[in-house]
Amino acid sequence: MNIAMIDDKIVDSNQLDRSYLDRGLYFGDGVYEVLRSYNGKIFALDDHLARFENSLAGVEIAGIDIGQVRSRVLKAFEAAKIPNAKIYFHITRGSGPRDHNPGLKMQPNFFLTISEIGDYSKSKINGYKVSTYPDLRWKKCQIKSLNLLPNVLAKMDASKKGCDEAILVDEAGLITEGSSSAFFAVFGGVIQTAPLTANVLPSITRKYVVKAARNIGIRFIDKSISAAQAKNADEIFLGVTTKDVIPAVKFDDAVIGDGKPGPITKKLIDEFIKFTK
Amino acid sequence: MNIAMIDDKIVDSNQLDRSYLDRGLYFGDGVYEVLRSYNGKIFALDDHLARFENSLAGVEIAGIDIGQVRSRVLKAFEAAKIPNAKIYFHITRGSGPRDHNPGLKMQPNFFLTISEIGDYSKSKINGYKVSTYPDLRWKKCQIKSLNLLPNVLAKMDASKKGCDEAILVDEAGLITEGSSSAFFAVFGGVIQTAPLTANVLPSITRKYVVKAARNIGIRFIDKSISAAQAKNADEIFLGVTTKDVIPAVKFDDAVIGDGKPGPITKKLIDEFIKFTK
Repeated sequence: MNIAMIDDKIVDSNQLDRSYLDRGLYFGDGVYEVLRSYNGKIFALDDHLARFENSLAGVEIAGIDIGQVRSRVLKAFEAAKIPNAKIYFHITRGSGPRDHNPGLKMQPNFFLTISEIGDYSKSKINGYKVSTYPDLRWKKCQIKSLNLLPNVLAKMDASKKGCDEAILVDEAGLITEGSSSAFFAVFGGVIQTAPLTANVLPSITRKYVVKAARNIGIRFIDKSISAAQAKNADEIFLGVTTKDVIPAVKFDDAVIGDGKPGPITKKLIDEFIKFTK
Repeated sequence: MNIAMIDDKIVDSNQLDRSYLDRGLYFGDGVYEVLRSYNGKIFALDDHLARFENSLAGVEIAGIDIGQVRSRVLKAFEAAKIPNAKIYFHITRGSGPRDHNPGLKMQPNFFLTISEIGDYSKSKINGYKVSTYPDLRWKKCQIKSLNLLPNVLAKMDASKKGCDEAILVDEAGLITEGSSSAFFAVFGGVIQTAPLTANVLPSITRKYVVKAARNIGIRFIDKSISAAQAKNADEIFLGVTTKDVIPAVKFDDAVIGDGKPGPITKKLIDEFIKFTK
């Protein structure tokens, strides 16, 4: 008999919930998005859905109706009745006996959660402490896939160091992005971040940071920043979907600026929030 | 209310089976092993458990009693009553609301499946066709983790080309390993494979191939093979836990040897099987 075992319990494989046979679990064979609402209004849904389509194409999960995904997000959001909600969803290639080769008959699995975003106002006022960690990830980080173990290991390392986020540094010493954020620095009044040609996710928050910078007349350049350069930045901030712009005031052992969120970061925070209304 | 959605169905997050909140699913935050039995006898259990311990340490999943894992494997194997069984098991860091940072209170999840290994005698007689694919994986492939999306994409590519396995080639043009196998070539009577210092999994099958080669007086060297060199190999074979030694007779567009399993590969197959008795 084909059997399965969950902790100490032996069960018939045929009786398992599909979640135990999900290729998302066996292989991380799926892609995801995280988005949020501000005061009852979902932010940048179209951007997230467009990126999700790119991720699906990147891992060759075909036949997904993005209109249906949109409907599901809206339906769940309406049911949850959470004004400031974090919305997570993923699609995996499907469930079946474990085999690297999925075959042709897979039925993709959709899964979504909605939860309330807690108060993060202190993070905006005090700023994050960040620490560096080697970028161990695969070579297709433009795909938002469920293969996130290197990100988890980086975040665990940051946490051990009393930091809020890990900043990933590649073999050339250049910063790619945070373990779950985009990374920005300010030098001489100019905002700088790694180009999207680096092995990074096309951050939606980044798109709106660029727009906000333009609105307030701040120059923005796409150019990789080394970890050594970052220590001497005038300001550092992160882009995180659930918290938009978050200042960082410590980078490894270096205090950034005067150890408080910088003036350009503060202006960006104020400008960004206008997009969410 | 915190809610979840499975396809079109909205459910209370608190009612979800732990499998839907498994960090294995969200992040691939877990490690696994595959082993097999030959005629009712599990092969190389100690080797697999030792590697599993290394994988657990590599991702900092602590507090696992390997003796308990062994007991569970044996208990499940006894219950399944399958003489030639494939035994898969994994441990993930645990279940909880999705957060890169696991926190301290995680309870790891154990999951195992046992199924019958089908007849693969034709593979041994006819040999595999293999095709190359870029090695897109992360930088810690010595850890047998659930982050296997690049392996899946490689296997899908091979399948589309009518091949049985994808051979991963790094940026220097060197073969690391197969998407779910170890790679070996024979040149002038000497077996060659990538050193374990490359970004490869320490294959258990490899260990026994080395032993078998010694027993039959064949030299074995640890040295990376380029894809270009592989095309001119006298013989190619793969090491796969569920099928031990499998000859490969085609490598991309190149026919290997005379297109049939070579003499050294055949000798290794005969020698290897002795270990399993």
